[in-house]
Amino acid sequence: MAKDKKLVAAITDMEQDFPQWYTDVVKKAELTDYSSVKGCMIIKPYGYAIWELLQKQLDEKFKETGHENVYMPMFIPESLLQKEKDHVEGFAPEVAWVTHGGENKLQERLCVRPTSETLFCDHYSNIIQSYRDLPKLYNQWCSVVRWEKTTRPFLRTMEFLWQEGHTAHATAEESQEETIRMLNVYADFCRDVLAIPVIKGEKTEKERFAGAKATYTIESLMHDGKALQSGTSHNFGDGFAKAFGIQYTDKDNKLQYVHQTSWGVTTRLIGAIIMVHGDNSGLVLPPRIAPTQVIIVPVQMQKEGVIEKAQEIKEKLSKVARVKIDLTDKSPGWKFSEYEMKGVPIRLEIGPKDIEKNQVVLARRDTSEKIFVSIDELEEKIPALLDDIHNSLLAKATKNRDEKTYVARNLDEFIDTVNNKPGFVKAMWCGDRACEDKIKELTTATSRCIPFEQEEISDTCVCCGKKAKHMVYWGKAY
Amino acid sequence: MAKDKKLVAAITDMEQDFPQWYTDVVKKAELTDYSSVKGCMIIKPYGYAIWELLQKQLDEKFKETGHENVYMPMFIPESLLQKEKDHVEGFAPEVAWVTHGGENKLQERLCVRPTSETLFCDHYSNIIQSYRDLPKLYNQWCSVVRWEKTTRPFLRTMEFLWQEGHTAHATAEESQEETIRMLNVYADFCRDVLAIPVIKGEKTEKERFAGAKATYTIESLMHDGKALQSGTSHNFGDGFAKAFGIQYTDKDNKLQYVHQTSWGVTTRLIGAIIMVHGDNSGLVLPPRIAPTQVIIVPVQMQKEGVIEKAQEIKEKLSKVARVKIDLTDKSPGWKFSEYEMKGVPIRLEIGPKDIEKNQVVLARRDTSEKIFVSIDELEEKIPALLDDIHNSLLAKATKNRDEKTYVARNLDEFIDTVNNKPGFVKAMWCGDRACEDKIKELTTATSRCIPFEQEEISDTCVCCGKKAKHMVYWGKAY
Repeated sequence: MAKDKKLVAAITDMEQDFPQWYTDVVKKAELTDYSSVKGCMIIKPYGYAIWELLQKQLDEKFKETGHENVYMPMFIPESLLQKEKDHVEGFAPEVAWVTHGGENKLQERLCVRPTSETLFCDHYSNIIQSYRDLPKLYNQWCSVVRWEKTTRPFLRTMEFLWQEGHTAHATAEESQEETIRMLNVYADFCRDVLAIPVIKGEKTEKERFAGAKATYTIESLMHDGKALQSGTSHNFGDGFAKAFGIQYTDKDNKLQYVHQTSWGVTTRLIGAIIMVHGDNSGLVLPPRIAPTQVIIVPVQMQKEGVIEKAQEIKEKLSKVARVKIDLTDKSPGWKFSEYEMKGVPIRLEIGPKDIEKNQVVLARRDTSEKIFVSIDELEEKIPALLDDIHNSLLAKATKNRDEKTYVARNLDEFIDTVNNKPGFVKAMWCGDRACEDKIKELTTATSRCIPFEQEEISDTCVCCGKKAKHMVYWGKAY
Repeated sequence: MAKDKKLVAAITDMEQDFPQWYTDVVKKAELTDYSSVKGCMIIKPYGYAIWELLQKQLDEKFKETGHENVYMPMFIPESLLQKEKDHVEGFAPEVAWVTHGGENKLQERLCVRPTSETLFCDHYSNIIQSYRDLPKLYNQWCSVVRWEKTTRPFLRTMEFLWQEGHTAHATAEESQEETIRMLNVYADFCRDVLAIPVIKGEKTEKERFAGAKATYTIESLMHDGKALQSGTSHNFGDGFAKAFGIQYTDKDNKLQYVHQTSWGVTTRLIGAIIMVHGDNSGLVLPPRIAPTQVIIVPVQMQKEGVIEKAQEIKEKLSKVARVKIDLTDKSPGWKFSEYEMKGVPIRLEIGPKDIEKNQVVLARRDTSEKIFVSIDELEEKIPALLDDIHNSLLAKATKNRDEKTYVARNLDEFIDTVNNKPGFVKAMWCGDRACEDKIKELTTATSRCIPFEQEEISDTCVCCGKKAKHMVYWGKAY
């Protein structure tokens, strides 16, 4: 009972202290726990079940688009990491180094992979010889390590789970197509599975991935108005190919360098789900990644026939949804709070009176709305309701994002907006790194992306007043 | 074409040089590749697809038996590894040590997990308080690292993929039940999915897992008569619980230690598949883990209607099996060899003459037998044939194992058998470590297990002649 009490004890109000609200939800919805290793998290069964559903659905999309999974070693020899100059400069400062194997000092240090471009390139240089070997469309699900100083569950941890796609193509056009294809896979996945709307665009040079020719990103907006980079897709051109000597013989028997891409999303997406959809009762899970979509809570369980009927309904519904039944001796009230905290999309209540009327009560987690539904119609109504919840969550998140997206035409407006109205700021930019740096220094906001959907807000840079090149989304970010 | 030629070039004869045959198959069936990291392998798409099918089906069994997946950090602080005395002695000599994070030397070394008992115990000590919290039935899919000197793809590599189950129970009876339950899950999985028969039994004290009270094993026999430990399940009793202080309050409000288990199988199972079922044409995959179960090879593709008919069949069969079609411009002969090398269970040939007769040719990979089947019956015949192939493979492997299982009644017989007849040797043992050591010294054979199914071969130890306690399976092992 002590455990239940903790669950229903109020969590911090999200409007009062959003970071503390986040920490409370992660803890009380039993998503993660702290570990003895500073900066590393334990992903608990409920959190991991979300990751498994996310992984399964994303993996299907990768396979539909022709990708194959592989597994590369978790270690990278120091000399291999150093082969591409920008890449090593970007990552070397934040890697974990293995120096000893058993009792012996290693001749060469190995880093624990922070990302695996170098390993894939090394492998590609061995297996690609002819145009017939192209494209190579590989993906890997694994964990990577980056030595972060400040960490937060899901958002920034020293070790995190992710997937990293690595592809090699015959031409620059094909690698560019692939880069955008996978960005779209991510964007569609966020919208259709996670109910999260994203802005698609290109990162500025400053924010580009170490070694990339172009980095594209999907940016989402959290409930508190802070941005979250939710997935990236990089076009490497032939930079890595030249560093690693990845060449193929084309149809005219001439040696050519391949063109490469990489793209990834991480367990960070779970952080996005929490911060986009959650409320003051806890987690709100979009139905398609909810480990339990319907929780059946029998009321007056001791009455004859209640448990039997509830179980009968569970059996029937298991064909159309992920259903669980709670037959523990906790009170219905405790159970209601518990599954609200865990974000279960639909609660199905059934008691003796309902059984008399051949009906149940369905309570939506997202709106708290309750409806009575005939038992005979459940198999049809539940999937429709889950879809409706998905659509409502997406609409609500889109509304929140749009309401928190502002326009700034000059620096004063920009500073005022960033300081007083948390959200995205759309503003023109000259393309100069100096203006980007100045804006960050003045406001801590960063350029999130140059969106594909450009708008002409004005023709001058919001910072320096010179001729503008792009409209940029700016914002404070996680 | 150069690549095709390599594929059909003869591999080493398995009866002449089994280790080289193994290496050839792994390479030519495109299962793994070498990497820049000594002792670590790259698992290529075809090898990884086998692992995914294996993982999926095993994971379902874990979930059916009530287990939940979690994710623990990949690092273990040195002080945590040292908490259980036997365990640290067993593993410390073979772990990789991280000493630096970025530019900084760590205050405490971290080892890359060789296994995660210590992390699970540390977590359990935090989350288990009451009998209501028990049992905890956790599992994790991840990679682990052990600093091995000599490595072979799948069989022994520095890093390998595996699952590790870690459970905590209220009583010794429950932990013993769980240990045996999971051993049975492994044994059934090997038989029903991998078509590999196994001997179930207990390891002797000498071969026990570091920190376990009892270790159980499934042992399989490879084509060459060497044994392979294919999965283990350990009962820890309350040893780890005492070292880590994992206590719960029972129903009488008394503090008790939990009783724990752990159990695991690895990518080594892919090595077992290769060495149990493979032949001189390459890999032979049991249908239930074959990424492609049916490969359609159209013959005389240029003839009108052949490709269309082949594709029509592919569409239809995709509902009942994992089917691929090869429309490349390689000759049918090349393709036949290629898919034989890759162990695809059924080859479906279709040409103009077959189409006239409304039939196809089905060639079994395991027996090379060819049958003509009406196109109308394919959807029914293919699943039945796949089952038949599974059963044949299992029968053949069982026959091979039984024929290579010998009995020895005295030391001379034992030595003679081990030296001249590769296989299992069943022999009585007094239970004394000295005899086990002596047998290993004389023959390099080790005790594989004390099988659950005991036989009374004689009443004296095969080594010392004293009173025998157990019948033991012995053998040289991978």
